[in-house]
Amino acid sequence: MSEIKIGDYLLERLAQLGTRTVQGVPGDFNMGLLDQIEDHAKLEWVGNANELNAAYSADGYARIKGTVAAVVTTFGVGELSALNGVAGAFSERVPVVHVVGVPSTGAQGSRSLLHHTLGDGRFDAFETMSRQVSAASAVLKRSEGAADEIDRVLTVAVRQARPVYIALPTDLVHAKISAKNLETPLDTAVPANEPDAEQYALDVAFRHIDEAENPVILVDACAIRHNCLQETRDLVEKSGLPVFSTPMGKTAIDEDHEQYGGLYIGSLTSNGVKEIVESADALILIGALKSDFNTGSFSYRTPKQKTIELHSDHAIVGYSHYPDVGMKGLLPKLTKKLEPRRQQRLDATRKRITRFENRLPQEDGDTISQAWLWPRLGQFFKPTDQIIVETGTSSFGMLEAKLPPSSHFVAQILWGSIGWSVGATLGVALAAREEKLGRTCLFVGDGSLQLTVQEIGTMIRQGLKPLLFVLNNDGYEIERQIHGPQRTYNDIAPYNHKLLLDFFSAPEDRTVPKDESHRKDPQPSAKRYHAVHSKAELDELLKSDELDNVQAIHLIEVFMKRGDAPAALKRQAQATSGSNKYE
Amino acid sequence: MSEIKIGDYLLERLAQLGTRTVQGVPGDFNMGLLDQIEDHAKLEWVGNANELNAAYSADGYARIKGTVAAVVTTFGVGELSALNGVAGAFSERVPVVHVVGVPSTGAQGSRSLLHHTLGDGRFDAFETMSRQVSAASAVLKRSEGAADEIDRVLTVAVRQARPVYIALPTDLVHAKISAKNLETPLDTAVPANEPDAEQYALDVAFRHIDEAENPVILVDACAIRHNCLQETRDLVEKSGLPVFSTPMGKTAIDEDHEQYGGLYIGSLTSNGVKEIVESADALILIGALKSDFNTGSFSYRTPKQKTIELHSDHAIVGYSHYPDVGMKGLLPKLTKKLEPRRQQRLDATRKRITRFENRLPQEDGDTISQAWLWPRLGQFFKPTDQIIVETGTSSFGMLEAKLPPSSHFVAQILWGSIGWSVGATLGVALAAREEKLGRTCLFVGDGSLQLTVQEIGTMIRQGLKPLLFVLNNDGYEIERQIHGPQRTYNDIAPYNHKLLLDFFSAPEDRTVPKDESHRKDPQPSAKRYHAVHSKAELDELLKSDELDNVQAIHLIEVFMKRGDAPAALKRQAQATSGSNKYE
Repeated sequence: MSEIKIGDYLLERLAQLGTRTVQGVPGDFNMGLLDQIEDHAKLEWVGNANELNAAYSADGYARIKGTVAAVVTTFGVGELSALNGVAGAFSERVPVVHVVGVPSTGAQGSRSLLHHTLGDGRFDAFETMSRQVSAASAVLKRSEGAADEIDRVLTVAVRQARPVYIALPTDLVHAKISAKNLETPLDTAVPANEPDAEQYALDVAFRHIDEAENPVILVDACAIRHNCLQETRDLVEKSGLPVFSTPMGKTAIDEDHEQYGGLYIGSLTSNGVKEIVESADALILIGALKSDFNTGSFSYRTPKQKTIELHSDHAIVGYSHYPDVGMKGLLPKLTKKLEPRRQQRLDATRKRITRFENRLPQEDGDTISQAWLWPRLGQFFKPTDQIIVETGTSSFGMLEAKLPPSSHFVAQILWGSIGWSVGATLGVALAAREEKLGRTCLFVGDGSLQLTVQEIGTMIRQGLKPLLFVLNNDGYEIERQIHGPQRTYNDIAPYNHKLLLDFFSAPEDRTVPKDESHRKDPQPSAKRYHAVHSKAELDELLKSDELDNVQAIHLIEVFMKRGDAPAALKRQAQATSGSNKYE
Repeated sequence: MSEIKIGDYLLERLAQLGTRTVQGVPGDFNMGLLDQIEDHAKLEWVGNANELNAAYSADGYARIKGTVAAVVTTFGVGELSALNGVAGAFSERVPVVHVVGVPSTGAQGSRSLLHHTLGDGRFDAFETMSRQVSAASAVLKRSEGAADEIDRVLTVAVRQARPVYIALPTDLVHAKISAKNLETPLDTAVPANEPDAEQYALDVAFRHIDEAENPVILVDACAIRHNCLQETRDLVEKSGLPVFSTPMGKTAIDEDHEQYGGLYIGSLTSNGVKEIVESADALILIGALKSDFNTGSFSYRTPKQKTIELHSDHAIVGYSHYPDVGMKGLLPKLTKKLEPRRQQRLDATRKRITRFENRLPQEDGDTISQAWLWPRLGQFFKPTDQIIVETGTSSFGMLEAKLPPSSHFVAQILWGSIGWSVGATLGVALAAREEKLGRTCLFVGDGSLQLTVQEIGTMIRQGLKPLLFVLNNDGYEIERQIHGPQRTYNDIAPYNHKLLLDFFSAPEDRTVPKDESHRKDPQPSAKRYHAVHSKAELDELLKSDELDNVQAIHLIEVFMKRGDAPAALKRQAQATSGSNKYE
């Protein structure tokens, strides 16, 4: 029977799952595995500027690839730096596989006072921390059973769409095990629902919808995260019902679909939409994730007895709960039952829905306002573009833009870690290159940019060509909207963004060392910087050929007024500020 | 009885302990506390570029101030980003107080699906993670008892020289409590040893030393961390014995002291020193922390029966253990008993000790070699300078330099997180400014710099003037020494360091917004960049007036050969590489 090293086994499984890029930072307990990654025929290593950025980037990569992403760190120092990024993936349901190179089993057994330890012999402290933000952990201690352990946690990662943790000691990376498991691909399919339970829930849900005058579909995050997009789109298409989306579900349904009416965010919703959703007598929630920023601070006005919630692992119709009846199995059957009335429903939908469009406000003056910016950007995007927005001004602002079909809206609305978007952009751009998708466009404020800015160096080194829109409004505007608009703590160190791309690139007079034969980096990106102060300037740039047919990494610094904010953010900030009362 | 808000109570305690600067990043659960910091008469807020850097900076600040440092983050996203920095402070025994602004007790009680949560109602997940790297935690739930809780954990931080964790819900920050506790300063003194046990241990230790021909003192990390420097220096002075230091104890004893012979690092030690230390018939270890990188991979050749270990909370003489007999009480009594033979011991010491000096090697060529660089830098430093070295080339290299009296050698030799030194430099520079100490000098490689580079922006904003030496040897040299010298994963994205200081500063044509009256930032630093390619260039620069009388932040890029490494690093890398065997 053929044998394989444990590290190679893990990599082979990752490759089978569709991962092509592995990210992270080298450290002295993971370099044996990095050798294997560099030597693997199907995998590429992308070294990040730090581990937090690496985890953010893996998160972005997994979202576009629709499969697991892997991030490799070293014991203690490296893995802890990545934790916030992994926690975000847990919160937002993204399958990031965190592989940590750890000291040899011998060193762990003797509780050696090694560097990268807490100095007290507790070698299990870090895995204990990671367990809080992992759906499963495999802390390998011996060769026996290692393959099954790896298979177990990778299966959990895919099925639950959540991070898992794998600790790989230095003496086991190259230890040999049987390769037999690899002959069978991992069974990552969600288990089928128990037929009788499913049929029962289906009948109840169908009757509820069928008897309703005005059923409405609302698509949320977990439709995307749990790979139910096709099933959801089929339901929409074949039921003929009106469909809306939450912020976290944005772009799950093509926004120019004739049945699509826009976003529902509870009390933050624009009037027409609010009326239709809240007057629905059957509201079908697909993959709901009712967090504060996803629901206008829990302000849904949708009666529970009229709601049908379909989740990855259960369903709720009115007040009836159906544990273990997951939407992956249920949705196609529901679609089939609804299909006969399609035309009748569609005719009604056409009458009720006002198509969601990018409408520019009538404004005096050429200053770039938040009210103008987002619909204008909406006109700029093209099908299959990736649109990554930072938590804050951008994630609220972009809700006001209609995005094109097959584009990806990428945001971290639940976890909301500032700086995430810059790291995530690297992973999104890597995935978009592999999948031959459109442009990768980042929208980040000057404040959030600072937390993770160095990852732009990795983009340049990798020859990637994202469009980086930096909204310069002189500090942490979302914080100012919530609290302390005149406080110094919401100010930041001002950067000279004009120099950013040049700083994160090799100097032109760089003398390359002689032993360069091993290098296999791509050609670094060409670079372009634009300062944009007015609507006219931005308009012209957005229409330019160089942003249409992108040949370089572009940094577009958009100067905006401090104190201006998208309407949805202003309303959200009031709500948040109210619930965080300090007096 | 007078009342005070809980947040103000905490700040008052921090101020009483001697802290003057509080660092961190604003977030929507901590801004009530940030208001109080900004309004506090004795405290300054310094906002960092991200939370990891903030924790690193707090670590550096505490090391120089000799008291607690505080770092403020926000729930989930912020606190997890800081964890690696806090863990480093735990490992290296630095009292960092991690204050986390968390959601209101009401929101926690109802398990709300708030942003910055894991989405599953587990509000205790993050404190659970932090407990692994904290000596004590206070998760405040109500006003009653809050003052005592705060007092309890701050006392632990000082006494144990370790991080503590305080979670402060938004609804409690401004809740009022009695101010009575504040009338009594915290009792942070180490409790006195039980007199009989102390006397017994003292007699045994003294007899052991007194009967020895060649006693030797070896000073290590915990002499510094547990505030026993004065007691240690008295012992050296009044015993007349030869004294050596470990890497983590470097500069605990003035390196031009006539009794000081240099560093002992087990098998990595230079010959003369090794002989004296290993032939000692009484070896007095003060505050030993025998980690791999502090001991040449556990290669001490010092027999246990001849060793006297004095620790913060116990002592060991030969094979006899004395639990709870701490060195703070024991050292002065031991000194008193040894003092009568001072002159005799001193005469012997003078004969045996070869003074540790900065000797430049005889080398051909003008290329800056590792062998030449470090002793040359040793000649450059002045008393009360701060010398911060990054884990890797710099931390090993600087061991070969003799540093001046009252200088501070600042390194993270046990935890060894790359990038730490850049964040730490901010805190060290802030503390040095407050304490009116000399120059702050950082030594970091081009690889490690990338992880935390943005904190240089904070230095500039704060008007600090450190000397930043960036050793450009084209990637992660310490990793290459250990494994994979020709591997791509040890390469990095090349930066154009010439632009660094300008990028992290306001552009010259910056138009400042109109509502600037609230700003109270210091004048930003003037900036200077130097590229140094040869010994002659570096020599000239080190002698220049602008580095002697520093008026700007200087970035000094020192171009060095890839593959060159300090001798101690080469030997350490071989040992590490051996114990991390992958085959």
